[in-house]
Amino acid sequence: MSEKPLRIGVVGYGYWGPNLVRNFSASPLTHVAAVADGDAERRQAVSQLYPWVRVAEAADEMLADPAIDAIAVATPLGTHHELCKRALEAGKHVLCEKPLADSLARCEELVRLAQQRRRILMVDHTFVFTGAVRKIKEYVEAGALGDVLYFDSVRINLGLFQSDSNVIWDLATHDLAILDFVIGKSPRWVTAVAVSHFGNLENLAYLTIGFDGDLIAHLHCNWISPLKVRRILIGGTRRMLVYDDTEPSEKLKLYDHGITISSPAQAKGKHEMLVQYRTGDVLAPKLDGTEALARVVETFARACALGEPPVTDGAAGARVVRVLEAAQRSLEQHGARVTP
Amino acid sequence: MSEKPLRIGVVGYGYWGPNLVRNFSASPLTHVAAVADGDAERRQAVSQLYPWVRVAEAADEMLADPAIDAIAVATPLGTHHELCKRALEAGKHVLCEKPLADSLARCEELVRLAQQRRRILMVDHTFVFTGAVRKIKEYVEAGALGDVLYFDSVRINLGLFQSDSNVIWDLATHDLAILDFVIGKSPRWVTAVAVSHFGNLENLAYLTIGFDGDLIAHLHCNWISPLKVRRILIGGTRRMLVYDDTEPSEKLKLYDHGITISSPAQAKGKHEMLVQYRTGDVLAPKLDGTEALARVVETFARACALGEPPVTDGAAGARVVRVLEAAQRSLEQHGARVTP
Amino acid sequence: MSEKPLRIGVVGYGYWGPNLVRNFSASPLTHVAAVADGDAERRQAVSQLYPWVRVAEAADEMLADPAIDAIAVATPLGTHHELCKRALEAGKHVLCEKPLADSLARCEELVRLAQQRRRILMVDHTFVFTGAVRKIKEYVEAGALGDVLYFDSVRINLGLFQSDSNVIWDLATHDLAILDFVIGKSPRWVTAVAVSHFGNLENLAYLTIGFDGDLIAHLHCNWISPLKVRRILIGGTRRMLVYDDTEPSEKLKLYDHGITISSPAQAKGKHEMLVQYRTGDVLAPKLDGTEALARVVETFARACALGEPPVTDGAAGARVVRVLEAAQRSLEQHGARVTP
Amino acid sequence: MSEKPLRIGVVGYGYWGPNLVRNFSASPLTHVAAVADGDAERRQAVSQLYPWVRVAEAADEMLADPAIDAIAVATPLGTHHELCKRALEAGKHVLCEKPLADSLARCEELVRLAQQRRRILMVDHTFVFTGAVRKIKEYVEAGALGDVLYFDSVRINLGLFQSDSNVIWDLATHDLAILDFVIGKSPRWVTAVAVSHFGNLENLAYLTIGFDGDLIAHLHCNWISPLKVRRILIGGTRRMLVYDDTEPSEKLKLYDHGITISSPAQAKGKHEMLVQYRTGDVLAPKLDGTEALARVVETFARACALGEPPVTDGAAGARVVRVLEAAQRSLEQHGARVTP
Repeated sequence: MSEKPLRIGVVGYGYWGPNLVRNFSASPLTHVAAVADGDAERRQAVSQLYPWVRVAEAADEMLADPAIDAIAVATPLGTHHELCKRALEAGKHVLCEKPLADSLARCEELVRLAQQRRRILMVDHTFVFTGAVRKIKEYVEAGALGDVLYFDSVRINLGLFQSDSNVIWDLATHDLAILDFVIGKSPRWVTAVAVSHFGNLENLAYLTIGFDGDLIAHLHCNWISPLKVRRILIGGTRRMLVYDDTEPSEKLKLYDHGITISSPAQAKGKHEMLVQYRTGDVLAPKLDGTEALARVVETFARACALGEPPVTDGAAGARVVRVLEAAQRSLEQHGARVTP
Repeated sequence: MSEKPLRIGVVGYGYWGPNLVRNFSASPLTHVAAVADGDAERRQAVSQLYPWVRVAEAADEMLADPAIDAIAVATPLGTHHELCKRALEAGKHVLCEKPLADSLARCEELVRLAQQRRRILMVDHTFVFTGAVRKIKEYVEAGALGDVLYFDSVRINLGLFQSDSNVIWDLATHDLAILDFVIGKSPRWVTAVAVSHFGNLENLAYLTIGFDGDLIAHLHCNWISPLKVRRILIGGTRRMLVYDDTEPSEKLKLYDHGITISSPAQAKGKHEMLVQYRTGDVLAPKLDGTEALARVVETFARACALGEPPVTDGAAGARVVRVLEAAQRSLEQHGARVTP
Repeated sequence: MSEKPLRIGVVGYGYWGPNLVRNFSASPLTHVAAVADGDAERRQAVSQLYPWVRVAEAADEMLADPAIDAIAVATPLGTHHELCKRALEAGKHVLCEKPLADSLARCEELVRLAQQRRRILMVDHTFVFTGAVRKIKEYVEAGALGDVLYFDSVRINLGLFQSDSNVIWDLATHDLAILDFVIGKSPRWVTAVAVSHFGNLENLAYLTIGFDGDLIAHLHCNWISPLKVRRILIGGTRRMLVYDDTEPSEKLKLYDHGITISSPAQAKGKHEMLVQYRTGDVLAPKLDGTEALARVVETFARACALGEPPVTDGAAGARVVRVLEAAQRSLEQHGARVTP
Repeated sequence: MSEKPLRIGVVGYGYWGPNLVRNFSASPLTHVAAVADGDAERRQAVSQLYPWVRVAEAADEMLADPAIDAIAVATPLGTHHELCKRALEAGKHVLCEKPLADSLARCEELVRLAQQRRRILMVDHTFVFTGAVRKIKEYVEAGALGDVLYFDSVRINLGLFQSDSNVIWDLATHDLAILDFVIGKSPRWVTAVAVSHFGNLENLAYLTIGFDGDLIAHLHCNWISPLKVRRILIGGTRRMLVYDDTEPSEKLKLYDHGITISSPAQAKGKHEMLVQYRTGDVLAPKLDGTEALARVVETFARACALGEPPVTDGAAGARVVRVLEAAQRSLEQHGARVTP
């Protein structure tokens, strides 16, 4: 590891920027050198909490500053591509908020650029760094679930309407990042249906994603639900699990439930069920409680120091946007199946 | 009302038949005269609990018996049409388990036949008779929700695999019956995606249903979920509600939450949200706790006595099957939008 | 085992009697020969469901009938002693509803009588036969909890006011029976405080029970709570458990949480905590789902056949009443500590 | 109101001090001038977050500084009395963490001193300033509950062992403050039972408090529970309520449930229940979501400006300590009833 902390410039201090700055400040591996935001009130907020940080209206100065090693991009989606591109071209490492960019082509351009410049391009797929999702990955890799049959996510509440992304680009991104990390397979087709009850941007959407074999994933995203639900079910032949992110503890439960198929000879008659359920213990494993964003920051700093890509690198960001883009095309084609 | 109780013959004493017989026996408006089932053990179970009831292997005898006024059909789906037809032709009133038949054409034939013979044809859409669904209907009709924006149902658990219907015909029927009763609008399109992880019949399905205007309905049905969920969300412009059938009390909650759209002039800038959420009290109204099936039985008896169609008449049964059939066609067309 | 089923006479067909008769009827080990109840409607209910059962207004006839092997007593508490006594004197085995009798002296008389007549005297401490309580017993015996530190039970809801027992004799009996079975230690002192908000009988009570060492038990019983709570916490040095009987599944959870005491040398200063918490996995073990009363019936039948006392024999019933009686004395002494 | 913000010195920057400093800093009515703490790391933490704040090892300097108007005391209980006394003698207003002091006599001395010096003495009974408790107060005052019958609180979890107070002085203080605010009656007697499983300080306690008439209060406090429970039940003759502080929303529920006593003539027989339950709607009212401590700070600042005592003044603090002291005496007398 390099001995000096990574010097960071953060662009954007709106909803997520403050969390980034707080975590970069708390880590011994990183140092926040500058923050840029077009809003004067926000710049003042930075100065009050972090008097030593240089503030600016725009990113130009930090991009030009050779003392700054890396840029964190926490601005609206429409600006990600340009900012990341400029940062990479200026020789900076980049940590970009999700989704990486507003099109697959732009993601791929950034990935190529990062490779050419030998810089780290990481996407802040925060959920991938939670104790729960890391444990799920462990279970899936160890075969604890058997063959994975389905992935069903409900991510709904009375949420903030975004101004430049619909509910799919806002919320489904989380699930697609989890899916990419945990399942690691390429989708074969995507369908999406969505409604914009207010204005132009869709506020309620259902995505279905097909994979090779029997595996299917389904996402329900909704900005206008009275209930807050953040729940993922993963069903497998050997075991099933439920990840309920709204639970204060016991977020993850592993069900020792499965399905056994009787041979027809064992069934009493043609109206008898050939499928046997097996139910068993339920385990809520202890999870690593480290704040996910602290782990993102640490992962980014280590990746920059070692020159090795992090798990949520630009390619992962591109894979997620590939599905988002396919979903968007499906929307335009009235829910037709689209190959991502 | 007629003074004598309606004399009933019940065909099928498997999963649901015992509940029908118990409720018909408990009602002063009905009398169970005969039960038919091909299984000897089941016939013996009838005789032990209801020694006065005539049992038979097949329905022929009760269909021929002029002392029997009405037939309740609780057999597998594939046999509904023939049994209902024979019963109506024999001049009996009919209460049929859901869904009414395995095709729209067959439902319509039964509806016509019932009209010709001036007999009551009722479908046992049990959920329509719960205190919760009746209260939802009241709220929707009174405008308490404002404009209804979406209907989202999750009906999943480790359920019995059916031998002659997939999870759509088994579980989605409940939601389609509720939707027909509560919303009362004609679907414009249906899409369905489903997977059969074990054998031929789909065990996991997602249905999406579009209506005129912005209204969308979505159903998730699943026989292989480790969690039991029976939850319907209905979002409206003025209020929203959640019907959680697994709650022992407080099954229904009315959220005084809504959405207000600010004029662009009120918003501070292009990145500001133009949509305002309004949150308020949550009410869990006291619900009529009468067993839904007792109310089905009473409704059927009164309909037969008065000669007036019940709310879940053959036409309602046909409307539900119309959507089921469209969903089945969509499945065959890889999730394409199908007009029901 | 004897080859012929045990022939049972049931006295009392009010709240619990129907459950007893249903379970005795379902078991191959027992046969319900007669039911006695002073209420004509209830006798008619018996005859309708079980036409072969002899019904009577009073118990005299069944006590005199040599063909009857055993009597089940499901009448109000005030009558238990006399009925059990007459049954034992008539040479019958006895299964008595909880609590065994309304005083310790009367319990002990019954225990002696059963010994003299070599008859089985069993108390229907139903909860002892649930899958959850049996699993708790396993954990405690295996040392999974370490040293048991406390037992805390809340058993409250809008319950039926009893006519001849207060809420302690009604509800606390369940917890005392569980405590006797699971912990198996003799209480050193009991305190009780209670209020009768309506009429003469206490409807809200708190019992505290001290044991040798640090172990303490506490019970909250309440007939006028808007919430239904049936929850027992057992804390131990190694692990803790929660038994929530209102959960449809996952009634029992074992917490791999414990307490470790640091030596003062390890603590940083006098204001530092010397106690370390250890948290870990949570396990909801699969439980035997057999209806507890079915197991009561089977246990009683086997005990009668083998002549060996069941786990909830008369002595267990007396131990529970010993504590109830002490609680009653404490009530009269304004909550003073009473030695049971 | 005075135009200048109240200048505050905060003593103690351990567990609660940071929350006080954060809220004093955020309020336009107050300004944090100085913070004292004996620990160098904590002082550094203050300087990093609030570079303009003067830090010191001890309180002497701020007590001597005429530019400081008020002192907030957030140190261990044993030091409250001396610090508050010195601050009042120095002519400062005082906001003291709960409980006010470690004996009733010391509380009363502080109350007299504040009166003599015409200074505000406020206790930070934070819960009194939550939206939930304020709404409960409204309901009780408006008679929505009818006659209050009982107050039952469970406040348990794996909590921090305090070094100089037992679980009663730590946790029961919250409930006693709520009880004082909401019910506003003087306890007639108190009993307490507690166990110290580890070391000298009790970690598990049950308090019972009797009032005139039928009203009873009961508190369960526990530092070694695997479950976190923060739940208060208040039963009344007309309605009942449940305040569950662990619920993210719907913390308060008002049950339109009550009890009606039938005249004996209406009851069918001596074994019939004379008490009728009435169940009805359940309402979860929208609550003011302002952070309680922000409201404490605002209340304190206004009280100082206007010279009028706040609702949780020194007298309220003394009333709470009166009960704590009685509980402590009851502990020493093996749970005997003690008059506070």
